[in-house]
Amino acid sequence: MFFHEPELQFEVEVEEPDPYFAKMLQQAVGGAEGEMRVALQYMFQAFAVPTDKKEYRQLLMETAVEELGHIEMLATAITKNLEGAPEHLREEAREDDAVIDAMMSGGQPRQALSAGLHAMPVDSNGVPFTGNYVVASGNLAADMYANVMAESTGRLLATRLYEMTDDQGMKDMLSYLIARDTMHQNQWHTALDTLDDHVPVPASFPQEKENGDVNYTFMSTFRDRHEDPDTPWTNGDSHDGKGDYSYGYQPGGGEPDVTEMLEEMYNEATGE
Amino acid sequence: MFFHEPELQFEVEVEEPDPYFAKMLQQAVGGAEGEMRVALQYMFQAFAVPTDKKEYRQLLMETAVEELGHIEMLATAITKNLEGAPEHLREEAREDDAVIDAMMSGGQPRQALSAGLHAMPVDSNGVPFTGNYVVASGNLAADMYANVMAESTGRLLATRLYEMTDDQGMKDMLSYLIARDTMHQNQWHTALDTLDDHVPVPASFPQEKENGDVNYTFMSTFRDRHEDPDTPWTNGDSHDGKGDYSYGYQPGGGEPDVTEMLEEMYNEATGE
Amino acid sequence: MFFHEPELQFEVEVEEPDPYFAKMLQQAVGGAEGEMRVALQYMFQAFAVPTDKKEYRQLLMETAVEELGHIEMLATAITKNLEGAPEHLREEAREDDAVIDAMMSGGQPRQALSAGLHAMPVDSNGVPFTGNYVVASGNLAADMYANVMAESTGRLLATRLYEMTDDQGMKDMLSYLIARDTMHQNQWHTALDTLDDHVPVPASFPQEKENGDVNYTFMSTFRDRHEDPDTPWTNGDSHDGKGDYSYGYQPGGGEPDVTEMLEEMYNEATGE
Amino acid sequence: MFFHEPELQFEVEVEEPDPYFAKMLQQAVGGAEGEMRVALQYMFQAFAVPTDKKEYRQLLMETAVEELGHIEMLATAITKNLEGAPEHLREEAREDDAVIDAMMSGGQPRQALSAGLHAMPVDSNGVPFTGNYVVASGNLAADMYANVMAESTGRLLATRLYEMTDDQGMKDMLSYLIARDTMHQNQWHTALDTLDDHVPVPASFPQEKENGDVNYTFMSTFRDRHEDPDTPWTNGDSHDGKGDYSYGYQPGGGEPDVTEMLEEMYNEATGE
Amino acid sequence: MFFHEPELQFEVEVEEPDPYFAKMLQQAVGGAEGEMRVALQYMFQAFAVPTDKKEYRQLLMETAVEELGHIEMLATAITKNLEGAPEHLREEAREDDAVIDAMMSGGQPRQALSAGLHAMPVDSNGVPFTGNYVVASGNLAADMYANVMAESTGRLLATRLYEMTDDQGMKDMLSYLIARDTMHQNQWHTALDTLDDHVPVPASFPQEKENGDVNYTFMSTFRDRHEDPDTPWTNGDSHDGKGDYSYGYQPGGGEPDVTEMLEEMYNEATGE
Amino acid sequence: MFFHEPELQFEVEVEEPDPYFAKMLQQAVGGAEGEMRVALQYMFQAFAVPTDKKEYRQLLMETAVEELGHIEMLATAITKNLEGAPEHLREEAREDDAVIDAMMSGGQPRQALSAGLHAMPVDSNGVPFTGNYVVASGNLAADMYANVMAESTGRLLATRLYEMTDDQGMKDMLSYLIARDTMHQNQWHTALDTLDDHVPVPASFPQEKENGDVNYTFMSTFRDRHEDPDTPWTNGDSHDGKGDYSYGYQPGGGEPDVTEMLEEMYNEATGE
Repeated sequence: MFFHEPELQFEVEVEEPDPYFAKMLQQAVGGAEGEMRVALQYMFQAFAVPTDKKEYRQLLMETAVEELGHIEMLATAITKNLEGAPEHLREEAREDDAVIDAMMSGGQPRQALSAGLHAMPVDSNGVPFTGNYVVASGNLAADMYANVMAESTGRLLATRLYEMTDDQGMKDMLSYLIARDTMHQNQWHTALDTLDDHVPVPASFPQEKENGDVNYTFMSTFRDRHEDPDTPWTNGDSHDGKGDYSYGYQPGGGEPDVTEMLEEMYNEATGE
Repeated sequence: MFFHEPELQFEVEVEEPDPYFAKMLQQAVGGAEGEMRVALQYMFQAFAVPTDKKEYRQLLMETAVEELGHIEMLATAITKNLEGAPEHLREEAREDDAVIDAMMSGGQPRQALSAGLHAMPVDSNGVPFTGNYVVASGNLAADMYANVMAESTGRLLATRLYEMTDDQGMKDMLSYLIARDTMHQNQWHTALDTLDDHVPVPASFPQEKENGDVNYTFMSTFRDRHEDPDTPWTNGDSHDGKGDYSYGYQPGGGEPDVTEMLEEMYNEATGE
Repeated sequence: MFFHEPELQFEVEVEEPDPYFAKMLQQAVGGAEGEMRVALQYMFQAFAVPTDKKEYRQLLMETAVEELGHIEMLATAITKNLEGAPEHLREEAREDDAVIDAMMSGGQPRQALSAGLHAMPVDSNGVPFTGNYVVASGNLAADMYANVMAESTGRLLATRLYEMTDDQGMKDMLSYLIARDTMHQNQWHTALDTLDDHVPVPASFPQEKENGDVNYTFMSTFRDRHEDPDTPWTNGDSHDGKGDYSYGYQPGGGEPDVTEMLEEMYNEATGE
Repeated sequence: MFFHEPELQFEVEVEEPDPYFAKMLQQAVGGAEGEMRVALQYMFQAFAVPTDKKEYRQLLMETAVEELGHIEMLATAITKNLEGAPEHLREEAREDDAVIDAMMSGGQPRQALSAGLHAMPVDSNGVPFTGNYVVASGNLAADMYANVMAESTGRLLATRLYEMTDDQGMKDMLSYLIARDTMHQNQWHTALDTLDDHVPVPASFPQEKENGDVNYTFMSTFRDRHEDPDTPWTNGDSHDGKGDYSYGYQPGGGEPDVTEMLEEMYNEATGE
Repeated sequence: MFFHEPELQFEVEVEEPDPYFAKMLQQAVGGAEGEMRVALQYMFQAFAVPTDKKEYRQLLMETAVEELGHIEMLATAITKNLEGAPEHLREEAREDDAVIDAMMSGGQPRQALSAGLHAMPVDSNGVPFTGNYVVASGNLAADMYANVMAESTGRLLATRLYEMTDDQGMKDMLSYLIARDTMHQNQWHTALDTLDDHVPVPASFPQEKENGDVNYTFMSTFRDRHEDPDTPWTNGDSHDGKGDYSYGYQPGGGEPDVTEMLEEMYNEATGE
Repeated sequence: MFFHEPELQFEVEVEEPDPYFAKMLQQAVGGAEGEMRVALQYMFQAFAVPTDKKEYRQLLMETAVEELGHIEMLATAITKNLEGAPEHLREEAREDDAVIDAMMSGGQPRQALSAGLHAMPVDSNGVPFTGNYVVASGNLAADMYANVMAESTGRLLATRLYEMTDDQGMKDMLSYLIARDTMHQNQWHTALDTLDDHVPVPASFPQEKENGDVNYTFMSTFRDRHEDPDTPWTNGDSHDGKGDYSYGYQPGGGEPDVTEMLEEMYNEATGE
C-alpha cells in the first residue's frame, strides 16, 4: 500500500513562465519516454515478481514510487509555466492576455481548454498516455532491458528539454531528473549483472528447440548479394558466447499456397 | 528502395488448422512484441542514421527488411490456421461450420468479420497496431537498447506461442523465428559493444550538468526508513564505473505553491 | 428513427475568420467535453432504457438529437473561421496565403491537409474522437451523474472558448451553447431528484453485502499519522444519511504471496 | 512525494483460480471504470488545486494514494486467478494445461502472451488504459461531479464482478472495494456540499453572458410537435433555483452558407 | 437541425437471444465497417459542401440521418440478444445464469461490465469507435470513393453476419440492412457519374505539374527484372484515358545524405 | 521475402529547410492518407489473395513494395527539413537556435523530443499511425475500392502539400509522388474493370436474400415529406443496372421493446 507527504521530492521553481515550455514538459509527464510510463511499468513488473525474489520486487516498487514523485514535480512545473508568459510573448501578444494568445497560436490547446492551464496525462503532441507504453513481461531479464531502454530514452528526453530552456529553476529540476535517470540506468544494469546466463532472453527456453541453422547468422537482405562485410556482427564469437557469427542470406521457403476461404465469407468478388 | 520475391523466407505449413491459435499469432504480427513493430522500428532508426555511419544504417535496414518477411510468414500462418478447424472443434460445433462456431465463441471476431478469415494488423486482444510501439530516438545507443528489449520480449512471445501449439508445422516456423530472435539479440548487443562509453545514455551529455548529489544513490521510498540492505545497487562501484552506489532517501523540496490561474479559465467553482 | 431540416438550430456567423480559433473549436466538436460525446452518450443511454421507463428514454433521446444539431453548428463555425484570416495574420504572413501560413505555424495541420479547411471529428490537440468518451452504464443514476459531469465540463469548455474570441458572431453562438448547457445540467439534476434513494449508486445492490467496517471511513494515506482534521468528510452524518463519517487508516492485509507461474511461460530469467 | 509498504491494503485470497475471472478483473484495473483511472484522476486534480485550498488538495491526494493500493490488490487478484484453473476447466481441457486451454479459447490472450499470466494496464476487452479516462478540469465543482460519476460507475462495476464469482476470497475483496466506493461517493458529494452556489458549473461565469431565451427551456426534438408533457424538467422551478423550466422547440437559425475554400486545397472535384 | 420519432426505421425481432451474436453485431455498430462510421462520415462530408452544391449536401445529409436510424436498430438488436441465452448455452452453463457464463468465457466482457448487457460504441473485438474511421476530405470525388468503399465493406460485413445467425428476426433485419447498402453503393456511384472528368482525383490539380515520366508506368519491384507481363495495367490505354500504360522499374535517386543534427539533441551515442 | 538497395527510389533534395513543412510532411508518412497506410494495406491484401489469383497478388505486393520506398523518401525529406531553419525563421528567432525556437512555438514537439529531429510514424497532428487505417477485407472488389479511395485522398494530400512549399526540391519530390498516385488510381480502376459484375459488393452474395422492397429506393429523411426531387439517384436505372431508382421514406417498424436486464447487473437505479 501507498503513502504520501505534501512535500515535493525536489524543489520546483520557475523564474519566467513559458507556455511553450509547458507544452514540451508534457512529454516527460504523459509521453512514451515520460514518468507515468516508468512509474506504472515498474509497478506492474513488481506486481508480477514471485514472493521468493523479494529483493527484485522491492527494487522495482521503490523505484516506481520515486517516479510517482517525478510526475508530481513535473505537473507542478507545468502549472508554473502556465501562470504567465515570458516578456517577449507579452510584448508581441495581440490579445488581452499573452498566455491565451500563446495557447492559441502554438501552445497545447487542451492545457487551457480541458485543464484550465494545468498538466494533463498527455504527451507534448497532445496525445493521451496509453497503457501500451508499459512493458511488464513476467520475465525479469526482459523487464530489465525494457527498463534500461526506458531510462535511456527518458534521460535523452530530459537532456533535450534541458537545452530548450534558459530558466534556471527548470534547469535545476531537469539536472536533478537527469541524475536520477543516471542512477536508474545503472541500477537496472546492475540487476542484470546479478542474473547469470540471461542472453538470449528468455534463457530458460531450451536452445536446442530453436532452429540451429540460422541462430547466429547475419541474414543479408541486400538486393544484390555482397561479400561478407566482415563486421563485428558477421564474424567472430557471438555476444552470448554460445555461437559464432556468420554471414548468410534468407533461406527461402517456397511460395505461399493460400486457398479460397469459406464461401460464407463472400470473399469472391463477383457473382456467378 | 525495396524489392520482393514471391517466395517466403521460410516455409509455413499447418497440419491441423486451429482458429484459436490464429488469434494468438496476431500478437506476433501486430502486437507490442510483434514483427510490424520491429520492421518499422529498425526502418525508422535506419532513416535517421547519418551517412557517415553507414555500417549501422546498413545493419538496421537489412534487419528491418528481414522482419518484413516475418510479417509475411505469420500472415500466411494465420490464414492457414483459419482454413478449417481442428477435429475436437468440429466434433463440438453447434453450427454448420466449426470455424464460424469457434470465431463466435472465442476466436477473434474481426479476423472473420473484417478480413474474411485472414490476418490483420492487430494484436491477439484485437487491438490495432500503433506507431507508439516504434522507438527511434535519434541516439544510436538508446536505439540499440530499445532493440535488445524488442527482441527480448519478441523471443519471449515466440517461445510462449511455441508451447501453445502441438502442430509440427507451427513449431518449425516458430523454431525458425526464435532462432532469428537469438541472432538479433546478439547483433544489437554486439553493436552496443562497438560504442565505447555509452552509459548513461546519452553519454554525449556532459555529466557535470547533472545533479551530482543524487546520481549514484539508490533512493528508498519505503514508508519507514530502513538500513541500507547492502544490495549490489546500493553499495560498490556503479555499473558505468563513474560513481559509487549509496543508499539514501528522497531529498524533499518544500510543498508546491500553486496559485489560482487566469480568471477567464473559470477555475473558481462558485460565483461570488 | 431520425429526421433533419437544412436550417441550423441557431445562427452561426463569423465576422473575422480566425484559423487559430478554428483549432480551438475542435475541442467542442470531437473532444472529451464536446458535442459528439454528449450526442452519442445520451443516444446509447436511451437505447438501453427499458420500455416501461419511457419518459427517461424520451428525455435522453430528445436531448441527444438536440446535441447533433450542435455538432452541425460548430462544424459550420469551424469552416467559417477557416475561410480567411484576421487582419493581423494577413499583415504578418510570409506566404501568399495567410491562412496557409497560419495552418503551418500554429493551426491544426489536418484541418487543411485532410479536410480541405473544414471541421473534423478530432479535438483541439488533433486527437480523434473515441468511443471511450461515451458513458452508458445501464444504470440510470450512474448515467445521470455522467451527464451532469459531461455538461459541467462542457459548459466550462464553452465559457473558456467564449473568453478566447472577440468575434461577436462567435460570442453569440457560444452564449447560446452555454445557455443550453445550463438547461441540460439542470434537467439531469432534476431527473436525479425523481429517483429516490439512489446514493450510493447502484442503490439496488444490498448494502449488507459490502464491508461494513470501512464504508464510511475517510482513509488517510498520509505517511505520518495525523489527528482527525475534523473536516465535513471525516465527521458527522454521511451524505447518503446511511452512516457516520469517521477517520481511519488503511487496514493492511499482509504481503502478497505470488508464486512462479506455469513453466511454459518462460518467466524464469535465466537458464539452468 | 510518495512512499510504500510491502503489505497490501486489504488481504487478497483466491480459493479456486479462474482465468476467465482474471480477464473480467482487468476492467477494474485498466478500464474506464477502474482504479488506474481514479488514482490518476484524483492525482492530476490535486496537482491543480491552488495552495490556499489545501484541504481539497489533501482530500484528493489522500484518496488518489488509496486507489494506488487498489490497483496493487487487483493485480494480485489477477495473478492468483491465473495460477491455475477451476476444476470444471481442468476436466474439459483438451491440452496439457487447462490454463493455457482457457486462455486460448476465451481468456485474455495478452495476459499470457505479453505478461506471462499476470495483470496488465488494459481493460477486460483487452484495450489499453488511456489518459483520456482522466478528467481534471481545473474547476473544483466540475471535478467533484467527475469523481461522483467515476465512483458511481466504479461501484457498479464492482457489484457486477461480485455477482460473477462464487469464490469467497474474491467476494471478500470486492465487498471491501464496494465499501470504499460507498465512502468515496459520499465524500465527493459532501465536498460539493461545501461549495455554495455551484450549479450551473462553472458558477463563476456571469450568467448574464449566456443567452437568456433558452437557458431553462426543455427543447423538444420530436419530429411532430407535442404538447408539453408536464414532466419535472419542463415545468416548475429549475434545479438551481435560478429559473423556471419551460417547454419549447429548436429556434432555427437559417441554412448555413458555406463557400468554396481556398483553391489550393483542390476541393473542386473536377478539372475545368 | 435534427428530429426523432420513437419508432424504429425497421422492425427488430430476436427469436432466440444469443450473447455471442451480440458481440459480433458490435462490428456493425462501432466498427470500421459500421453504422457510426457512415453516419458521421456522411455528416461531416455534408457540413463541408458549399451552399451552391445543395443537391450533394442534401444527398449526404439525408443518408447520414438514415444511418443514425441503423445504429438505433442494431443497438436494439444487441440488447435483445443479451436478454437471455440460446438453449444450447443454457444446457452447458456452469453458473446460475447462462448469459453471465457466456459473457465470461467468450462474450464481450464490457457489454456486461460497463453497459449492463447493452450495446456500446465499440467494435466486435471490443475496441472503441474512433474518429479515424471518418473520411471527409473536402473533395467531393474523393469523398464519394470513400463512400463507395464504406458501403462495400459495410455490405460485406452484413452478409457475413447474415450467414452467422439462424435467427429469423436477425436475418430479416440484416436482409433490410444489406438492401440499404445496395442502394447506397449505387447512389454514390451515380453521384460520381454526375461529376465529369474526375480521375485522377483531384482532377482540379493541373496534371502538367505532375512528373510526366512516371504517371502511367507500372513500376515493378520484383527483385529480378521480368519482362512486361502484359496485364491490363501494364499495357494499353489508362483507365482515365489520359495516358498509356507502360511497364518499368524504380528510377533510383542516389543514396540519401543525412547529416548529424543539432548537437543539443544529443544524438551522439558516446561521450568524447 | 523482401530486399533493399541503399539508393532512394527518387532523389530528395531540400533547398531551404523548413521545420514547419517537416511537420506537414508527417501526414504523408504516418497519416490516414499516408504511405505507411498504403504500403501495409496493399501488403495485407496481397497476403490474403488465393494462390490461383496470382496476378492480383503480384499487382498488390509490387505496389506495396513501391510504397515502402515512398516512406523512405519522405522520412529523408523530413530529416532534411529539420536540419536548419529558413531565413525568415532565423531572423525572428529568440533563442540560440532557430530550429528549436520553431519546434517549441509551432513545430511538432516529438520530432525533436522523441526523435532528435527526424521522422516518426505519426501524422501531422502528432497522432501515431494505427492499424485501423488498413483495409483488407478478403474481397477483391471491396479492397480495390478501398485502394482507389486511398490513392484519391493520398493524391489530394500530396497536391495540398505541393502548394504549401516554395522549395524546388520538395516540389520535385511531390510532383513525382503525385504522378505515382495518378498511376495507382488508374491501376486499381483497371483491376476493377477486370472483375465483371462486382456491384453491389460483394456480388457473390445472392441478391434474392436482400430485402427487395428497399434496395433501390432513395430514402428521404427530411423532416417534412417532399416531392421526388428528380435527381439521378431517385429516378432511372440504377448504376449496377439491376434495378430502378425510386424515392421513398423510412418504412418504420414499431417502437423498440426493451426490457429490464438480469437483476445481477444492478441496472435498477434505486433500492427498494
